[in-house]
Amino acid sequence: MQLSPSLTALIEALRCLPGIGPKSAQRIAFHLLERDRSGGTQLGDSLLKAMQVIGHCESCRTFSEAPLCDICLSVKRQDSRLLCIVESPTDVLAIEQTGQYQGLYFVLMGHLSPLDGIGPKEIGLDVLDEKLSKGNIDEVILATNPTVEGEATAHYIAELCQKYNVDASRIAHGMPVGGELDLVDGMTLMHAFSGRRSLS
Amino acid sequence: MQLSPSLTALIEALRCLPGIGPKSAQRIAFHLLERDRSGGTQLGDSLLKAMQVIGHCESCRTFSEAPLCDICLSVKRQDSRLLCIVESPTDVLAIEQTGQYQGLYFVLMGHLSPLDGIGPKEIGLDVLDEKLSKGNIDEVILATNPTVEGEATAHYIAELCQKYNVDASRIAHGMPVGGELDLVDGMTLMHAFSGRRSLS
Repeated sequence: MQLSPSLTALIEALRCLPGIGPKSAQRIAFHLLERDRSGGTQLGDSLLKAMQVIGHCESCRTFSEAPLCDICLSVKRQDSRLLCIVESPTDVLAIEQTGQYQGLYFVLMGHLSPLDGIGPKEIGLDVLDEKLSKGNIDEVILATNPTVEGEATAHYIAELCQKYNVDASRIAHGMPVGGELDLVDGMTLMHAFSGRRSLS
Repeated sequence: MQLSPSLTALIEALRCLPGIGPKSAQRIAFHLLERDRSGGTQLGDSLLKAMQVIGHCESCRTFSEAPLCDICLSVKRQDSRLLCIVESPTDVLAIEQTGQYQGLYFVLMGHLSPLDGIGPKEIGLDVLDEKLSKGNIDEVILATNPTVEGEATAHYIAELCQKYNVDASRIAHGMPVGGELDLVDGMTLMHAFSGRRSLS
């Protein structure tokens, strides 16, 4: 005896989700069929729609349903000569929520990770190269995550900027506001000391 | 700035999966869009198909695309007077793999759990009641999981069987074959002792 063909197909398809193995896939399939069919149908519809209509912004590479995203289309920003480079669309959201940055973005959609087969081309550095070569950018702010891969990616891009005489800066590392000194890791504390600013 | 509407809808829909919160849903959506669009499309198709075609076997309640499942349709088993009660379709698979059981099944699709709003009707005990009332079953084997809820469910069904003078038996609890005494928990060991069988 076997599970029905559609059920087997569903369990197999669920395994494309990151972190979902055969047992979890089975559990999810049973849960949806037994307790949440409308949720399952809605998820199916959303998946098909999203996979079809969502592409990348031609200018900044973030996810967008139109050829250019809202930020790249914004009249206020179009002529900005400041470019902030982040790893993911959620980083853009986080920076936008501060309301302080008025420049443009470039979204890598990941970070350099040669072991996983993710090289400069996979994170769109060829597109960035072309963008910088046009001479419309004065400064690049490297806001990749402060992880090993994020730092490596930032250094790689900084070298790219040198080629076109564009200033490259890295966001500051140090104590998070409201944090406590004895709860912060050594690396962060080291960065906070070496990046200290004169108060006078 | 916000994420595009289809992306927001996808992230929201992914949250119907058990154990997936807002952050995981976002991570999954980005992963599918960025690295596995064909997998996402296939998952969407499988979900819609499964939600539409998979129903319950009218006789044993397991998932089935036809009105009756393969086991209930099997000529060899149709006249069996033995009924094994399990919690989920995978339990049926596990028992079938032993190749020793030739009777029929009844799948509860869960266990009694009043706090979660799962009462006798939700696990199909009204269907079971009707089945037993017809007098075609001689013995019910209670193969629910040896958990608190599984035991409670087994006791509830045992009482139902008494009503119709049907024998009810519980699968044995004890040492798993190949297990080691010092690695087994106390409850299991207690069951192994109290359920000991004479060798003479």
